[in-house]
Amino acid sequence: MTVGTTTVSKPNIGVYTNPKHDLWIADAKPTLEEVQKGEGLKSGEVTVEIKSTGICGSDVHFWHAGCIGPMIVNGDHILGHESAGVIVAVGPDVNNLKVGDRIAVEPNIICNKCEPCLTGRYNGCENVEFLSTPPIDGLLRRYVNHPAVWCHKIGNMSFENGALLEPLSVALAGVDRAGVRLGDPVLVAGAGPIGLVTLLCVRAAGATPIVITDIDEGRLKFAKELVPDARTYKVQIDKNAEENAAGILAALNDNEGDSIRPQVALECTGVESSVASAIWSVKFGGKVFVIGVGKNEMQVPFMRLSTWEIDLQYQYRYANTWPKAIRLVKNGVIDLRKLVTHRYPIEDALKAFETAANPKTGAIKVQIMSSEEEVAAATQAANGI
Amino acid sequence: MTVGTTTVSKPNIGVYTNPKHDLWIADAKPTLEEVQKGEGLKSGEVTVEIKSTGICGSDVHFWHAGCIGPMIVNGDHILGHESAGVIVAVGPDVNNLKVGDRIAVEPNIICNKCEPCLTGRYNGCENVEFLSTPPIDGLLRRYVNHPAVWCHKIGNMSFENGALLEPLSVALAGVDRAGVRLGDPVLVAGAGPIGLVTLLCVRAAGATPIVITDIDEGRLKFAKELVPDARTYKVQIDKNAEENAAGILAALNDNEGDSIRPQVALECTGVESSVASAIWSVKFGGKVFVIGVGKNEMQVPFMRLSTWEIDLQYQYRYANTWPKAIRLVKNGVIDLRKLVTHRYPIEDALKAFETAANPKTGAIKVQIMSSEEEVAAATQAANGI
Amino acid sequence: MTVGTTTVSKPNIGVYTNPKHDLWIADAKPTLEEVQKGEGLKSGEVTVEIKSTGICGSDVHFWHAGCIGPMIVNGDHILGHESAGVIVAVGPDVNNLKVGDRIAVEPNIICNKCEPCLTGRYNGCENVEFLSTPPIDGLLRRYVNHPAVWCHKIGNMSFENGALLEPLSVALAGVDRAGVRLGDPVLVAGAGPIGLVTLLCVRAAGATPIVITDIDEGRLKFAKELVPDARTYKVQIDKNAEENAAGILAALNDNEGDSIRPQVALECTGVESSVASAIWSVKFGGKVFVIGVGKNEMQVPFMRLSTWEIDLQYQYRYANTWPKAIRLVKNGVIDLRKLVTHRYPIEDALKAFETAANPKTGAIKVQIMSSEEEVAAATQAANGI
Amino acid sequence: MTVGTTTVSKPNIGVYTNPKHDLWIADAKPTLEEVQKGEGLKSGEVTVEIKSTGICGSDVHFWHAGCIGPMIVNGDHILGHESAGVIVAVGPDVNNLKVGDRIAVEPNIICNKCEPCLTGRYNGCENVEFLSTPPIDGLLRRYVNHPAVWCHKIGNMSFENGALLEPLSVALAGVDRAGVRLGDPVLVAGAGPIGLVTLLCVRAAGATPIVITDIDEGRLKFAKELVPDARTYKVQIDKNAEENAAGILAALNDNEGDSIRPQVALECTGVESSVASAIWSVKFGGKVFVIGVGKNEMQVPFMRLSTWEIDLQYQYRYANTWPKAIRLVKNGVIDLRKLVTHRYPIEDALKAFETAANPKTGAIKVQIMSSEEEVAAATQAANGI
Repeated sequence: MTVGTTTVSKPNIGVYTNPKHDLWIADAKPTLEEVQKGEGLKSGEVTVEIKSTGICGSDVHFWHAGCIGPMIVNGDHILGHESAGVIVAVGPDVNNLKVGDRIAVEPNIICNKCEPCLTGRYNGCENVEFLSTPPIDGLLRRYVNHPAVWCHKIGNMSFENGALLEPLSVALAGVDRAGVRLGDPVLVAGAGPIGLVTLLCVRAAGATPIVITDIDEGRLKFAKELVPDARTYKVQIDKNAEENAAGILAALNDNEGDSIRPQVALECTGVESSVASAIWSVKFGGKVFVIGVGKNEMQVPFMRLSTWEIDLQYQYRYANTWPKAIRLVKNGVIDLRKLVTHRYPIEDALKAFETAANPKTGAIKVQIMSSEEEVAAATQAANGI
Repeated sequence: MTVGTTTVSKPNIGVYTNPKHDLWIADAKPTLEEVQKGEGLKSGEVTVEIKSTGICGSDVHFWHAGCIGPMIVNGDHILGHESAGVIVAVGPDVNNLKVGDRIAVEPNIICNKCEPCLTGRYNGCENVEFLSTPPIDGLLRRYVNHPAVWCHKIGNMSFENGALLEPLSVALAGVDRAGVRLGDPVLVAGAGPIGLVTLLCVRAAGATPIVITDIDEGRLKFAKELVPDARTYKVQIDKNAEENAAGILAALNDNEGDSIRPQVALECTGVESSVASAIWSVKFGGKVFVIGVGKNEMQVPFMRLSTWEIDLQYQYRYANTWPKAIRLVKNGVIDLRKLVTHRYPIEDALKAFETAANPKTGAIKVQIMSSEEEVAAATQAANGI
Repeated sequence: MTVGTTTVSKPNIGVYTNPKHDLWIADAKPTLEEVQKGEGLKSGEVTVEIKSTGICGSDVHFWHAGCIGPMIVNGDHILGHESAGVIVAVGPDVNNLKVGDRIAVEPNIICNKCEPCLTGRYNGCENVEFLSTPPIDGLLRRYVNHPAVWCHKIGNMSFENGALLEPLSVALAGVDRAGVRLGDPVLVAGAGPIGLVTLLCVRAAGATPIVITDIDEGRLKFAKELVPDARTYKVQIDKNAEENAAGILAALNDNEGDSIRPQVALECTGVESSVASAIWSVKFGGKVFVIGVGKNEMQVPFMRLSTWEIDLQYQYRYANTWPKAIRLVKNGVIDLRKLVTHRYPIEDALKAFETAANPKTGAIKVQIMSSEEEVAAATQAANGI
Repeated sequence: MTVGTTTVSKPNIGVYTNPKHDLWIADAKPTLEEVQKGEGLKSGEVTVEIKSTGICGSDVHFWHAGCIGPMIVNGDHILGHESAGVIVAVGPDVNNLKVGDRIAVEPNIICNKCEPCLTGRYNGCENVEFLSTPPIDGLLRRYVNHPAVWCHKIGNMSFENGALLEPLSVALAGVDRAGVRLGDPVLVAGAGPIGLVTLLCVRAAGATPIVITDIDEGRLKFAKELVPDARTYKVQIDKNAEENAAGILAALNDNEGDSIRPQVALECTGVESSVASAIWSVKFGGKVFVIGVGKNEMQVPFMRLSTWEIDLQYQYRYANTWPKAIRLVKNGVIDLRKLVTHRYPIEDALKAFETAANPKTGAIKVQIMSSEEEVAAATQAANGI
C-alpha cells in the first residue's frame, strides 16, 4: 500500500438524503485519518479524492421521491455517481494506478461470476453494487474507496469532462447497442441531458439527417446550438402519436420528393406518447431503442410494430463504455463542455440540487466540485479564458 | 411458351368469400381453355395446377370478419395461400421450370425496386401483391398463373408437405430472425398451428429445454406427442402475467438448483397477457419474438423490458424461406405430416372451412386437395399404408 | 415515353480500349437521333446524358493489362463506371424519373432472381451486368441508356460529387460491413483513392484514433490534409509485417501508458505484406476487412488469426449504398471534393487517362466531364470562386 | 471451509511430461493430507477428485513435440484438461458448491480485468491460466484445487460425459460463433475428435445437408455411423483444392438440378489444402470458420475470398460454453458416448497415451479414469449393460 505525495487535509463530507426527503451535508467514510494513513483499503482498492460530480436526474428523484421503482431510500443515503478525481491512496494488489493519477469513476462493482458478468453484459450483474443506488452510497463525498479496476485514467482531461463520461457512457451504450451507423437517418426523442449527449453521439457517428424532439422550445434551441445541422421538432401535446410522427417526418424531409424515415429512434424520455411517436416514425425493419425510463406498464402500437417488423429494444446502464468515452473526449471527437450550465463547490451542494431540480433555471448539467478554486478554474476554462 | 404433356381437363373453380361473409365455389380465372392453350401468360409466368392447399387462420378470419386490420374484403375474393401443385403451362422467358415440375407456391409478387426488396427483406415490399390478401385473389383454385421465380421445385415431396411449407416458412422466419441457437432454452407461447410448427423448428434447431404454453389441454397434449421432450405449461387465465411466468419457469426447471430462463420466447398467440408472460419469463438480455398478431394497441411491462434489456421483436410474413424449408422437409429434419388432421377435396371446400373454424373438431391443419383421389392417397401415406 | 425540354445536340461518342491496349474515342450507342427521338428505350429505362465520370484504377488496368482476373477485354470496349448526369429521355414504365432530373448512375443491372439478389446482397448477383466490366460497356459516353431503378436523384448536388458517389459507395460498403462504430480505433491501410475515401468515412463515423498507412510520403501528406487528426505511418518495405505492425501501434499510442490496438483494419491495398501487417495490428477479436484486390493466392499469418480470433472479411463492390452516399454528401457529413485533382473534357480523355496512370502527376481522382464549360465550372466551384 | 463426507484415501499422483519427451506418473499437489484437512485452499477454491479425463491431441503434442507454437514445456509438466470429478473439499467464500457435488472442470482461470474478460470473450484473457498449457499444470491428477466458479455441476451425468464437455465446448463455441442455423447446408472438414463432435453439433442444430470430409476412410465410416444422414467425402490428396471442392459439392448435391453450396464450413483440420477446399466450396457471402490449428503461415485463395465475400473466421478455445453443453447432454440433444473408444485407469496412463498417439488403434477419444472400477462401470454403461 502506498500513500503518495498528494496531500489531503480536509475532513471527508458527503451529500445525504433520507426517506424524509431531507438533503444535507455531513461527515462521511472513509475518514481523513484513514485516507492519510491508507487504512482500510481492501485488495484491489484505491482512495479517490473526488473533484467533480454531476447531478443526475435520478439523484434528484431519490431526494424528492425517495425511490426509483424497487430501489428505495431506507436510511441516510449518499447521492452521486458521475465523478472524476485523483488517486490519493493505493491498496494492496493494485498495479495499474498510482497516487496522483487522474481518473474517472465507473460507479459499479460487479461479481464476475454470474452469466451477465461472464458474457460481457455486466450491467445486468445479478449482484451488482451500483453507487448511489440504495443501499449503496454514492460518490458525492470528498474521498471514496473504490476498486482500481473501475477507476479509468483520464490523463490531462479536465475533471469536469471526466465526470461527464458517465452520462456519455449512457448515450454510448445506447448508440452502440442500437447499431447507429454512418449515414443512418436518426430520431432522438427528448432534449434533456441524456437526449443531448445522445444527440452529440449520433452526430459524431455520422448519422444524417438527425431530428431531435422535445416539448420545450428552450431545450430544442439548446440542441440546435449544440448540433447546428440537427433538425428539431416541438412535440404537440394535443396531437396523437401518429400526428406527431408526421411532424417528425416533415422535419426530416425538407427536400421535395424525399421520403426518409429514421432507421433508428433513440428514445430518451420514457414517456408513453413519445415512445409511440417513435414507433410510428421509423421505417420498415427499423428500431426504437429506449434509453429513458418510465411507467411500469405502457401501451404500444402493437400491430404497427408487427406489420413493420420494428425492433423495440431497451437499455439498462452500460458496460465497457469508459475506454471508448475517454478516447472520444480526449481526441476531440465529442465535446461535452457546453452541457455544464452550472457549477458549485460541494459546500453549496444544496443550492446545486435546487438548481438541478428547478426547470426554470434552464439547467442542463449541474456539477458539484471539490472547492471554490475548482469551480473558478472550470468556469474560466469553459469561457475559454 | 410450352404446354407439355400434363393433361388438364377440369374447368377452373375457386373458393370465394365476400363482404357478406358468404363462402362459395364458382368459376375462376384462368379458364380451362386458356390453360390448355397457354394463353395469357405474361413474361416469366407459369400456370400451376394446384394440388393441395392448407386453410390458414387468416382465411377463416377474412371469411368471418371480412378484414384483418386495414386489409378489407371489398368484393368477391378467392382465399388460400398455402399451396403446392404441378406446372401445366410455361410462359415466355421462363428458364427454370418445365411442364410437369412439382412446385410449392410462394404466395407473393414483389416490385424489386423499393428499399425492402433491394435489402433482402421483401416481406416489407412497398408494392407487394400477397395472394389471398384483398384485393389480390388467393390460391384456392384449380389453376393459377404465377411468376416462375415464386414457384419452388419440391422434387418428389408430397403436395401435402409442399403446401405445409408456407406455415413452415412463417416459423422459420421467426426462428431465424429470433436467433435461436443450439442449446438455448426456449419458450414457445401458443400451441396452435403456428406454435406447433415453431415447436418443431426450435426442436430441430437444438433448443433445450423447450416449454410450450396454451390455455387448451388438448393442444398441449398434441404438442407433447409431436415433440415428446418439450415441457408444457397450461396458462391459468385467473393468474396474472408474472404468476404465469413463474409457472413457465417451474416447468423449465425440473432439476433442483436449476435456474434456467428462456433466452428466446417465440410468441405465437398475439394475446396481450401471453406477450406479458413471455416478457416476465426471459432472462436478462433475452428476447421476446412476436410471431402472432393481435390488438392494435397493447400494454407491455415497460420497466421490466428496460431494466432487463429485453429485446421485443416482431415478424411480418417471411422472405427467402422456401429453399431452406424444402431442404428441411426433404432431408427429414422436420416432419410436418402429423399437423394435417383433416383433408377434403376442393368440391367440399365449405365443409373444410367449417371444420377449420370449429374449435371442437380438434383440427390443427385442414387441407383442401384437387380431388378425392389426392385425398385418399394423402390419407394412405399419412397412415403409413 | 417522354422526351422533355433538355436539348441534346452533340453526337454520341465513347472512350474505348481493346486487347491491343489502344485507347481512343469513337462513335457510341445510342445515337444522337435515337436519344432525340427516345427510340430503343426498353421498359424501365432512361437515357442519361453523362456529365462527369471519374477514372478508376480498374479502368486504367483494363487499358494497360487487358484484364482483371477472369474479366478479359476481348474486343472494342467502353470504359468508365463512376458517373453522374441528367435524364434526357424516359422510356416506358418509368415513374420515378423525368427529363431534367439530375442523377448519379449505379453501374449495375441485376437479375432479381438469384439468392444474392433476393437476400439483399445483389453485388453477388449470379447474372449481374456491371458496366465497364467486359463484355458490358461502360459509362464514358455522352449518352447511355440505363434502368431507372439504378439512376439515383442527386437534387442540386454537383455532377462532380455525383460521380464521386461510386468510390464513396465502395468505402461505405466496407465501413458498414466492417462494423466500424463510434469510438473504435481504426487502421486504414493504403492512401490511394479508395483508402482516402475510406479515411473520410471512418472519420465521419467517429472512429478514433485513426491511423493511415502508405509507402508514399506524398499520399500520407495528402491524407493528413484531408483528415488532420488522422495519424500516419509510412510503411517500411525493408521491415516485415510484425515490425510494420509495431510502427502502426506506435502511431496509435502517442500517450504514455496507452495500449490501443485497432478494432478494425480496413485494408485498401490488397498487398500481401499490408494485409499481414493489418492482421498483426488488430486486437484480440478484431477484424481485418479487405477492400483492396490483389494476388490470387496470398500468405497469411494463420496462427495469429487463430489464437487472436481475428475475423478476415472481404468486399466485392457494393449494394444499397447510393441513398446513404447521397445523404452524406448532400448534408455535408462527407466532403469529397478535395479528392478531385484533375479535370478534363471528354475530348481530352486520352490525356485524362495518361494523367491517372502516371504516379508522378500526384493524381488522386481524375474526372472526365462532358465539356470545357463543365470543367471550368467545376474548377471554379472547387476553388471556391 | 468444509470437508464433507466424501472419503479420500489414495495419495495424489499426476501424469507428467518434460522437455525430454518422457511420460511418467509421480506424486502431485495437493497432497492427500492437505486434501483431507482442506488445507491450502484459497478464497473461492474447491478441491476436486478427478474421476475421468480425456486425452486431447494437444496433450500428445506436448509430450511428443514439447511445444505448441509459443507454449513450450520447460520442466516437469502435468497434462490433461478434459476432466470431471467430485468435490471433496470446499474453501472459503464458496457458496455454490458443497462436498459431494459432481462437477465438470472448465480448465481456465481468468483475470476479470482485461478487455476480453470484461467483454465476455474471456478465452482471450490477457492473463489467463489455462490448465495443461505450460507452465500451468493440467488435470491428470487424483486431486486438483480449482476455483469454484470454473466447476460446473453436472447432476447425475456420468463422469465420462462430464469429461467430454470440454471437447464439446470447443465445437459449441465454433458452431455458435460461426452462426450455424437451422436448415443451413454445412461442411465439416475433418473427422477427428473435434470434427466428429462438431458434426454432432451441426446435426443437433438442424443443419442440412451436411457433408464431412477426411483423408481416412475409417474415420468417415465412423462419422457415418455417428450421424447416418451426413454425407461423406474422402479427400483426394492428389487433387488440388478446387477439385476437392468439386467433390464436396457433388456429395452435397445428390439430386438432379440441385446447386447447394455450404453456408458455413467448419474447418477442423488446420491443414492448408483443407482450408482452401473449404473456401472454394462455400457460397457467395458464406463463411469458413477455422477451429483447427496449423502452420504459422498459410496460403489462401485470396481473390476467391474477395470476389465471393467469404468471411474467414477463427476460434481460440471457448467462453461460456459449459452451461449450454451440460443442458445439451443432460437433455439428450447430443449424445457423445460413442466417441469414447478406449478407457484406462490412471495407473495405466502411459498405455492410454500410447493408444491415443497411435493412429492404428482407431482411437477417437481415450479417457483416463480414477480407478479400474470406474473403467468397468463406464464400459458397462457404454455397452448398455
